[in-house]
Amino acid sequence: MKFGGTSVADLARIRSAARKVEAEVARGHDVIVAVSAMAGKTNELVGWVDSISTLYDAREYDAVVSSGENVTAGLMALTLQEMGIPARSWQGWQVPLRTTSAHGAARIEEIGRANIDAKFAEGMKVAVVAGFQGISPEGRITTLGRGGSDTTAVAFAAAFGAIRCDIYTDVDGVYTTDPRISRKARRLERIAFEEMLELASLGAKVLQTRSVELAMRYNVPLRVLSSFDDSDAQSGTIVCAEEDIMESKVVAGVAHSRDEAKLTLTAVQDRPGIAAAIFGPLSEAGVNVDMIVQNISEHGRTDMTFSCPTDQLARAERAMRAARDAGGIAFEDVLADTEVAKVSVVGIGMRSHAGVASRMFKALADEGINIKVITTSEIKISVLIDRKYMELAVQALHDAFELHKAG
Amino acid sequence: MKFGGTSVADLARIRSAARKVEAEVARGHDVIVAVSAMAGKTNELVGWVDSISTLYDAREYDAVVSSGENVTAGLMALTLQEMGIPARSWQGWQVPLRTTSAHGAARIEEIGRANIDAKFAEGMKVAVVAGFQGISPEGRITTLGRGGSDTTAVAFAAAFGAIRCDIYTDVDGVYTTDPRISRKARRLERIAFEEMLELASLGAKVLQTRSVELAMRYNVPLRVLSSFDDSDAQSGTIVCAEEDIMESKVVAGVAHSRDEAKLTLTAVQDRPGIAAAIFGPLSEAGVNVDMIVQNISEHGRTDMTFSCPTDQLARAERAMRAARDAGGIAFEDVLADTEVAKVSVVGIGMRSHAGVASRMFKALADEGINIKVITTSEIKISVLIDRKYMELAVQALHDAFELHKAG
Repeated sequence: MKFGGTSVADLARIRSAARKVEAEVARGHDVIVAVSAMAGKTNELVGWVDSISTLYDAREYDAVVSSGENVTAGLMALTLQEMGIPARSWQGWQVPLRTTSAHGAARIEEIGRANIDAKFAEGMKVAVVAGFQGISPEGRITTLGRGGSDTTAVAFAAAFGAIRCDIYTDVDGVYTTDPRISRKARRLERIAFEEMLELASLGAKVLQTRSVELAMRYNVPLRVLSSFDDSDAQSGTIVCAEEDIMESKVVAGVAHSRDEAKLTLTAVQDRPGIAAAIFGPLSEAGVNVDMIVQNISEHGRTDMTFSCPTDQLARAERAMRAARDAGGIAFEDVLADTEVAKVSVVGIGMRSHAGVASRMFKALADEGINIKVITTSEIKISVLIDRKYMELAVQALHDAFELHKAG
Repeated sequence: MKFGGTSVADLARIRSAARKVEAEVARGHDVIVAVSAMAGKTNELVGWVDSISTLYDAREYDAVVSSGENVTAGLMALTLQEMGIPARSWQGWQVPLRTTSAHGAARIEEIGRANIDAKFAEGMKVAVVAGFQGISPEGRITTLGRGGSDTTAVAFAAAFGAIRCDIYTDVDGVYTTDPRISRKARRLERIAFEEMLELASLGAKVLQTRSVELAMRYNVPLRVLSSFDDSDAQSGTIVCAEEDIMESKVVAGVAHSRDEAKLTLTAVQDRPGIAAAIFGPLSEAGVNVDMIVQNISEHGRTDMTFSCPTDQLARAERAMRAARDAGGIAFEDVLADTEVAKVSVVGIGMRSHAGVASRMFKALADEGINIKVITTSEIKISVLIDRKYMELAVQALHDAFELHKAG
């Protein structure tokens, strides 16, 4: 069971979360609980580090920002004990949860079971583990990157062969689209790992991408549910293997992202290797290029358009001008457009159903929405459009694929 | 160098503290810095634990309340690095600082030097250690009790053979008496460990008693000074061995405590072993009896008077009545008096100078102050008086022993 920051925001919320743990213990289960820092605490710590230095030592950053989870883990253990449940807290180094030395974005290498198993054998019912943190080979504290507590939870579920990993958050599941955009948005009962991965990478904030990857690799069924809901625990959305979903619709959901910018290099001198000459420097500059489109070449010149997160736009422009100055590429101009948005439809049913793309393009055309760039994967189609049409596009696609209807 | 909570209360204060460390590094020293939690943080954590449970698991208490020091240690290391000083933070378990398992009030057993020494050898100039915390033989986090960061600092100074241990706090040294009571109070340049110990146990909040004991045992010269003073570092008060003080006055200071209550058992049936029959149950009830006076016995009956901290008064009364009910002692009544205060004079010179007591009693008599109870040690005389005369008594004694005059 994993409880996010808003689910442990204060002592009353921690008590409410502890009651959910108590219910699982009452069902006869041993439970591992992974906790985030109380809402706002990690941001406060990050703010302090940032204001000391912009080029901080990531090892000290990790030592500082991991402390919020330690507090919550102890408070949760105390709350459970107060309810009469044998519980204790574990910090990452105590487990130990071993990670790489990539401070600030460490990857889990191994979770030692022996210490926690021994306590379960002694009668402990709940191990409360501090999320987000681990220990490097050098014995320093590491963190797993923002939202890393989801990954902590899934990794523990995998290491201990848990029957399920419940992710408690402030929403009650995964929706067909953002309910703030479409009133018709519907909570999904089940969604496949692959679909969840696409939705997460498309900006759905419900689960950290890495946690879904990990759950998929170890086939740990995830359940996303709200800690604010005190009704029957059978609610929420289950994220599971494709074969555990009886009958799925062609499209599971419609995602959107405002956080996209479009860059066009005009009159690029076309030659073999030009793509590498462009995207190599971008990658080195830390720009995550998403969608790419290359126009048909005329007179040895072409326009090259790509999208990237808005906050990487300046870096991308700089990298392109620098590459031109260094003689690696030749182009006329760099045109930036931040007034764009990405809208995507996602569904594993696309693999076996043709016509999804044409249905999508027709729905958008019917609303007079012009598509600027298209990209597809096996289970996803994304389009870049004018930002002002984003809500309209989401609603039109939700209707076109009849996502308001169950199963 | 140890910086207390008010000395690291925010990023600006941490920067100011770091500049003092920088000055020591500039003098060619390797430095170990022990830090407290930012002012108020530990109280917040303790408050949370207390409101979850009154009978909390001390191991979880320690895991929670130790987290504030980890934050400050990381922030201090980052601040020093930003100044170009090679520094890193160490949590108790990383050092390791090994303690007993007495959670909440653990005693230091051993400080491992190897890890920190290795980093000094690699060119690190400052090791920032989280104060107040250690690791138990079971691998759990322990804390040393409130104010334990002073003890951390002294223990590191002893383990690493430091030339000095500077305790930075919000006062600029040890005074002959409380400056809020006597305008004539004067900062002492030097004070002996023994005197400091007496003053600390008498309520002077400058240094934790245990840290002074430890400094005395390992002969670590302490310096108490203000982190709010940016002038020359030669200020403050040095706490050192008696033989390092050239010429000391008979009396070093006048201490006072409002936190005293007086209990009198009337018409106690006097018999051999009666003192044990009274003070045994008090000790078992956790009452710290301080001063004791027994009247001359008449007709096999005597009055027995003792003092204890005010917040233990109710417990003491209960313990006495219970002992009477159990037949262990016989007395007429228990009379409690909370309108008392303790005033003490302290000085190693008393050992070799007679007449201190008579000079003290005369000074009080001249002001018409009645003495209720007297207790003495080799270097201290304490009296219990009516609380309303406390300030008057302090001023009279400060004058009588001419403490406003230097040397």
